[in-house]
Amino acid sequence: MAQDPLVIFTPSGKRGRVTPGTRVLDAARQLGVDLDSVCGGRGICSKCQVAPAFGDFPKHGVTARPEALSDWNAVEERYDRVRGLKSGRRLGCQAQILGDMVIDVPAESQVHRQVVRKDAAVRDITMDAATRLYYVEVAEPDMHEPSGDFERLARALEAQWNIPAVTAAPSLLMKLQKVLRKGDWKVTVAVFADHHEGAAKILEIWPGLHEDGLYGLAIDLGSTTIAAHLCDLGTGEVKGSAGIMNPQIRFGEDLMSRVSYAMMNPGGEVEMTAAVRTALNTLFAEIARDAGIDPALIVETVVVCNPVMHHLLLGFDPVELGQAPFALATSSALALDAAMLELTAINPRAQTYLLPCIAGHVGADAAAVALAEEPDKSEDLVLIVDVGTNAELLLGDRTRVLACSSPTGPAFEGAQISSGQRAAPGAIERIEIDPATKEPRFRVIGCDLWSDDPGFAAATAQTGITGICGSGIIEAVAEMRMAGLLDPSGLIGSAEQTGTPRCEPDGRTHAYLIHDASAEGGARITVTQGDIRAIQLAKSALYAGARLLMDERGVDRVARVVLAGAFGAHISPKHAMVLGMIPDVPLDRVSSAGNAAGTGARIALCNRAARARIEAEVRRITKVETAIAPRFQEHFVAANAIPHAVDPFPELRAVVTLPEVSFNTGGDGDRGGRRRRRRA
Amino acid sequence: MAQDPLVIFTPSGKRGRVTPGTRVLDAARQLGVDLDSVCGGRGICSKCQVAPAFGDFPKHGVTARPEALSDWNAVEERYDRVRGLKSGRRLGCQAQILGDMVIDVPAESQVHRQVVRKDAAVRDITMDAATRLYYVEVAEPDMHEPSGDFERLARALEAQWNIPAVTAAPSLLMKLQKVLRKGDWKVTVAVFADHHEGAAKILEIWPGLHEDGLYGLAIDLGSTTIAAHLCDLGTGEVKGSAGIMNPQIRFGEDLMSRVSYAMMNPGGEVEMTAAVRTALNTLFAEIARDAGIDPALIVETVVVCNPVMHHLLLGFDPVELGQAPFALATSSALALDAAMLELTAINPRAQTYLLPCIAGHVGADAAAVALAEEPDKSEDLVLIVDVGTNAELLLGDRTRVLACSSPTGPAFEGAQISSGQRAAPGAIERIEIDPATKEPRFRVIGCDLWSDDPGFAAATAQTGITGICGSGIIEAVAEMRMAGLLDPSGLIGSAEQTGTPRCEPDGRTHAYLIHDASAEGGARITVTQGDIRAIQLAKSALYAGARLLMDERGVDRVARVVLAGAFGAHISPKHAMVLGMIPDVPLDRVSSAGNAAGTGARIALCNRAARARIEAEVRRITKVETAIAPRFQEHFVAANAIPHAVDPFPELRAVVTLPEVSFNTGGDGDRGGRRRRRRA
Repeated sequence: MAQDPLVIFTPSGKRGRVTPGTRVLDAARQLGVDLDSVCGGRGICSKCQVAPAFGDFPKHGVTARPEALSDWNAVEERYDRVRGLKSGRRLGCQAQILGDMVIDVPAESQVHRQVVRKDAAVRDITMDAATRLYYVEVAEPDMHEPSGDFERLARALEAQWNIPAVTAAPSLLMKLQKVLRKGDWKVTVAVFADHHEGAAKILEIWPGLHEDGLYGLAIDLGSTTIAAHLCDLGTGEVKGSAGIMNPQIRFGEDLMSRVSYAMMNPGGEVEMTAAVRTALNTLFAEIARDAGIDPALIVETVVVCNPVMHHLLLGFDPVELGQAPFALATSSALALDAAMLELTAINPRAQTYLLPCIAGHVGADAAAVALAEEPDKSEDLVLIVDVGTNAELLLGDRTRVLACSSPTGPAFEGAQISSGQRAAPGAIERIEIDPATKEPRFRVIGCDLWSDDPGFAAATAQTGITGICGSGIIEAVAEMRMAGLLDPSGLIGSAEQTGTPRCEPDGRTHAYLIHDASAEGGARITVTQGDIRAIQLAKSALYAGARLLMDERGVDRVARVVLAGAFGAHISPKHAMVLGMIPDVPLDRVSSAGNAAGTGARIALCNRAARARIEAEVRRITKVETAIAPRFQEHFVAANAIPHAVDPFPELRAVVTLPEVSFNTGGDGDRGGRRRRRRA
Repeated sequence: MAQDPLVIFTPSGKRGRVTPGTRVLDAARQLGVDLDSVCGGRGICSKCQVAPAFGDFPKHGVTARPEALSDWNAVEERYDRVRGLKSGRRLGCQAQILGDMVIDVPAESQVHRQVVRKDAAVRDITMDAATRLYYVEVAEPDMHEPSGDFERLARALEAQWNIPAVTAAPSLLMKLQKVLRKGDWKVTVAVFADHHEGAAKILEIWPGLHEDGLYGLAIDLGSTTIAAHLCDLGTGEVKGSAGIMNPQIRFGEDLMSRVSYAMMNPGGEVEMTAAVRTALNTLFAEIARDAGIDPALIVETVVVCNPVMHHLLLGFDPVELGQAPFALATSSALALDAAMLELTAINPRAQTYLLPCIAGHVGADAAAVALAEEPDKSEDLVLIVDVGTNAELLLGDRTRVLACSSPTGPAFEGAQISSGQRAAPGAIERIEIDPATKEPRFRVIGCDLWSDDPGFAAATAQTGITGICGSGIIEAVAEMRMAGLLDPSGLIGSAEQTGTPRCEPDGRTHAYLIHDASAEGGARITVTQGDIRAIQLAKSALYAGARLLMDERGVDRVARVVLAGAFGAHISPKHAMVLGMIPDVPLDRVSSAGNAAGTGARIALCNRAARARIEAEVRRITKVETAIAPRFQEHFVAANAIPHAVDPFPELRAVVTLPEVSFNTGGDGDRGGRRRRRRA
């Protein structure tokens, strides 16, 4: 008796012998090969397309002859005629294996396909969304066995897809009977089954085969901006991205002023909750419209945000987050009906997942960064810094991860800086100061030329030169230090001391003039002593947080630094180190992770196991509270100086404590007040 | 070494030796004795009160000396001073066992106490509500261990009450932080954990010890009236009852006209759903106000109803229930947030449980009757008949239970009867006709006198005598038959044939005059030939349903009959049998179960295991569909005659089929039309 045909699947390499006449889809299932199918092998969804290979395969020890696969059958012919089948492709549920075969499963036919990295912000994600489509054929009602339509649908899902004990909300049951009859008892259902135990839920139902896909939104809910990515839950593909200002800004620029607003105004948190929910719905509608996707096909959302935004989204009064001991209402991950958050612009039964918060100051956004950057899997000790109004810091490696937050304030975002502005066209983002001449050159957002390049004036005529954004001010301060315009304590020298008239008197201190277009009615842009102080406070807080984690971990250096966050992507690592924002590491060991929190949200959206993983990891992370660590204040004071620096930096980091620096004078008063409120 | 003290708990009889100094509550737990506690043994809730007994107990082999129990301690003294402790009572969490003891646990200190039967409608219910109160002491927040307030509450519930993995809705989390702080980290929570697997849910939270109880509503949602009982979920006590008309009546008197309304009017089901939900909220508010109970303390509702009401409550279009094969959207029991049904007049996180439907015509109300009457536990074969516009029938015993419904139409409710009316003061409810004189005497609702008693006229002057209600018309027809005014076919004889001028011409047939107050402007009440035909149709349908179940079961008699439903309670079993509504059994084997559906709802409300029991039982019940059983029509035709009868009935039930009876003439035409619509 001849041996059964040997079949080898690529790229998995899984192989085995099957009975002649076995369908490729069945062979894949028998051998544990990841081959997709929505229709369950009925020849209508085409998700199980495969590419048979013929010829000699010495590596596999197989010769595959064309007759090893059955001829095209009527189903394949019809499918090819009506919808078109790519050359060399067969329907896995139709083609039968008759002889030894090598069969390739293309990426788009794999359920758990890898999302290919396209840019820095796209990680390799293995697709395993919580919501999937299933095509089922449901038994018709029978008076002799008077079960409900839903019960017969549930039985079909169990029999045909091995999904037991499915449930459905009343709003789904409301449409069930019509859809079943419209589809002549053949329907496609979207079934949600996340990483938690418990029954799967039917979120949506369509007559016949539904092929328009399923979508989810990964939402990075920031204090200032809200960004969302619309992802295909089958392929992981990003179908659209959009951002919107967080309308809560009108209740307070930074988080603590919003907490204050809630404290001072009874019902204030209700207003802020309503505002952010409305903004999310607006954003969802816009992103779906731009992508040309029916909002009803959006069945999942994943939200990452800091603890205050987390509470304000959920409708919790954030007042406890404004005072010690900074108690969260809940720190766990939450899986909810989106309708509970009044997210009504998407499918009415859409699900929402909020990542867990790490601590009262370290939110779901930091958890998302941990999910995206995986410090817990790092072989070397990595410091991950997500810079914002509050900086979140993660330090760790495979053995242990620690987290804290540090109140950097809004200076890095250009706020409380005399010529500061948000990153927008016209803002200075890069600066160099010649150490010899003390003359600056700079670049503005929206123009690739430097200010001393020919054509710069014409190229920036439209936008003008309007101010300095966060990355610009960091470079400005670092460059001023390297050009000898600042002493280690951060004091700006006079024109006489520095030898440049750009160091001009400004009250009792001095300011450095970068650009003056006031004669033409434009801006006069300087860096004042107050600006330097604000940046010193912010960078000291950031550095002190990092040092505190290093103390807890018992180390005095880290192997690499990752700058996360939209802002992090624009910071020059060199200048950050000159400034003393981050601990010293070789320059090539500093990388930018882009919007790691947003990436973490996308990972949690596309892979339900990632949800379980981050929930477990957050429980393991050691939480360090800067507010009660006496060493934080010590590090903060010690980090105030701007270490003497030349470029490139050979022997940086001789931290000099200069007692004459005072935090409670001039423009810093308000800042100190805010810190006291925050840390009361 | 002396032996450890022997302690005997009554009434359970559980006994064992405990270490001297063991608290009575701990001893009870060690020995598996059912002793309540909400505060977990902290001496504040007093739920664990016990009555120690002293003296010689030869039966138990124990002599209990007063010194066998510790003296009153400060906690008990304070409790007695502030709140009063009944004579002879001790707090089980304070009193310590020092010597041999007999300790009685009074009923009110048992968690799973029996609800004592008070009237026919109150079954013995073992209390085991899905929602219970737990007092917990929660750890305060700690910056060194920055878990959320909810996570610490959940940990406390697990540690102190062994309730793992509790969850809470965002609306509960919204108030959590304030309540925890108000109660100084001591709170009482209402935790819902029904018969399904899965996490327990916190429905409500109060600062400190909450002692105002928890309540639930058992709702019998009928086509005509909605009745609700407000029950204490701790004791099972009924705190209030109220009823309200079903406002859907304006869309159609009977169920099939409501289904037609939904068919004919797009969105009609939405209107009807809104109407019934509004009515329920009105009813809930009224019942809570009358009972003086805060509606927020109502945390559960259980609803029983027929399939059409079931769908209209849930917002499902009932159209499929109006046509073969009568497919339910869902037949399973449903456990939902009450808010999903817009039941907003109670606690916002209240839970709703709908009993399962048995089949497209046999609803959750019939399941509730099965739960209350337990035919599956009956030693003898019982027929349970719930009479209404549709009659539901259950036939069975321990071996097997069968169910069907039968379209009796509204005649039994006084509709489609010439002098018919709903049961209300002034309606004739009892009738006797003297076989010799053919003269009637009767009683009306609201008066205990018979019409030939002295003072009757004066006693009924207020209400008048306005018509005949359902039980009255049944008696009238049966009495007319027994008095020789009707032939077996149901034909009313003429004055000449019957010898009484009360049999007066009425078109081509005759009518029997019961009461004539027309001279004084009152009603003239007769039983017409049309009335007889309507009753014959109704009773034939009922009887045919019973016979069909008996055929399926292979029997030609039943051991006993239970008449359920408000109407069933008022039917005279004798007259029902004379009429041939129900199969013959000895008169003492006919009983009334009152509102068994409502009782079933209360059982499901008070005992979560009952929910599992009825769900399993409904799966086991054999469903018989009258619409597709050829024998149903045969039985229906055969049952049309009114068997020759004398009173008391010795040899009843010689069913005579009289072919001259026609269902399609006169006033019966409309009825037939409705049946056809229903059974199309």
